[in-house]
Formats: sequence, structure tokens, C-alpha cells
Amino acid sequence: MTDAKPESIEETSAFAPRFNEAGLIPAIAQDAVTGDILMMAWMNQEAIDKTLATGEVHYWSRSRAGLWHKGATSGHIQTLVSMHIDCDQDVLLVKVSQTGAACHTGRDTCFYRTVKAAGGLALKPGH
Amino acid sequence: MTDAKPESIEETSAFAPRFNEAGLIPAIAQDAVTGDILMMAWMNQEAIDKTLATGEVHYWSRSRAGLWHKGATSGHIQTLVSMHIDCDQDVLLVKVSQTGAACHTGRDTCFYRTVKAAGGLALKPGH
Repeated sequence: MTDAKPESIEETSAFAPRFNEAGLIPAIAQDAVTGDILMMAWMNQEAIDKTLATGEVHYWSRSRAGLWHKGATSGHIQTLVSMHIDCDQDVLLVKVSQTGAACHTGRDTCFYRTVKAAGGLALKPGH
Repeated sequence: MTDAKPESIEETSAFAPRFNEAGLIPAIAQDAVTGDILMMAWMNQEAIDKTLATGEVHYWSRSRAGLWHKGATSGHIQTLVSMHIDCDQDVLLVKVSQTGAACHTGRDTCFYRTVKAAGGLALKPGH
């Protein structure tokens, strides 16, 4: 017998991401300088490994069903500044240095619209 | 015949969130003042409606399978400052004024750990 309690998922120093039934975990990308939320996409274990190994953010493209090296085609790469995981290890946050536009529409962020309380969307100023 | 093209999901001013097969959409909560990412949780249509109607953030608790008025028990409510949706309308961002701690561990954010490139997690300073 031992008095040692197993470390909780909230306090452990072991990195053990909890993937969903498709083997994916949401990853929020935040501009490390401005604090703006750029986008949210999905990672699998391979995308996490590639991101940490190369210092450039990789996701898993659900539409293309393949590893997605963000910016490999457009040049709009995300250089990893730091990676974080939440309390119950089912969401990742990557702080990045964004080259060019984060959004495929050419905007600096994917969150360029505001939901109006009265209904409908409004473009944020400057978008 | 008409030359009018249907508005794309990226450019429409219609709010039409795309829920997953469980009827949920990820919602990122960001501190409206500091820019810190506080947490990510899930909303269904009812949670969105309640959030917009009351000005206090509601989620859908997957573990409890019920509407979750954040802070109703703890007092750690999130007052809505603005709601945003991403380009393809499958992720929400809520900017909030957080009362008390966002995380159930008592920390100000759920993202209090950094993933180390060499493996494992480190507590962020001050956590």
C-alpha cells in the first residue's frame, strides 16, 4: 500500500492530450504579440509532433483528410512561440508569429464578424 | 435568370452556425481586457440564444449533458462583451468580462501549462 495519489490530469506534468473519437484535438491559434485569436483548427498526434519538431504549426485538415502544414502553399506560415494545454488536456493553444494572413479569405483573423444580439452578423471595423 | 451569386458562408451577414453531428460548436472564451484565452467549451443553439439574451455566457456541458450557465454555482460568471464567428461559421469566439476564476482549478485561465518541446508540461509562471 502507498499513500501516493495518482496525479490528476489537471496537475500532472505529463503531456497526455485527450483526442476525440476521430483522434483529433482542437487547437486555438493566438497571435503571440497582439493577443488576437487567429483561427481554430484540429491537430492529431502527428501534427503536434511536427509542430514541436519543426517550430512551424501543422494541423490535421478534416476536409482534405491529411496533415496540413499551415502556409506551405500560401507562405502564410505560423511560427510556434509556445504551446499550451488546458486543465483537462482536451484543448491546445498555440501562440504563434503569423506570416501574412491567417485566414484563407486574406484577412488577418478568421474572426472578422460580430454576432449581433438582434440577429445577423456585422463585419468588424477594418475587415 | 439573374447574375446574383448566393453569398458565400465567408461573406454572408446571416448568422448560421454550423454545428457538429452532436449539435455543438466550439466556443473560445477570451478575456476582453487582457486578451488572455480563458477556456474553450461547447455551445448548442440554446446556449447561444441564452448567452445573447441574458448577456451571461452559457455553454452545453457534455459531461452533464445539460445547459451550463457558467458561474451559476461558483459565482464565476462570464459577462458577454461580444460574440464572433469564424470564416466558415464552425467556431465561436466570445469576448467576456470574467468574474473570479475561469478555470475549475481556481486559476484565471485553463491554459496554465506549457508544452515543452523536449516533452512534458511546465506550469506557467504564477500558476
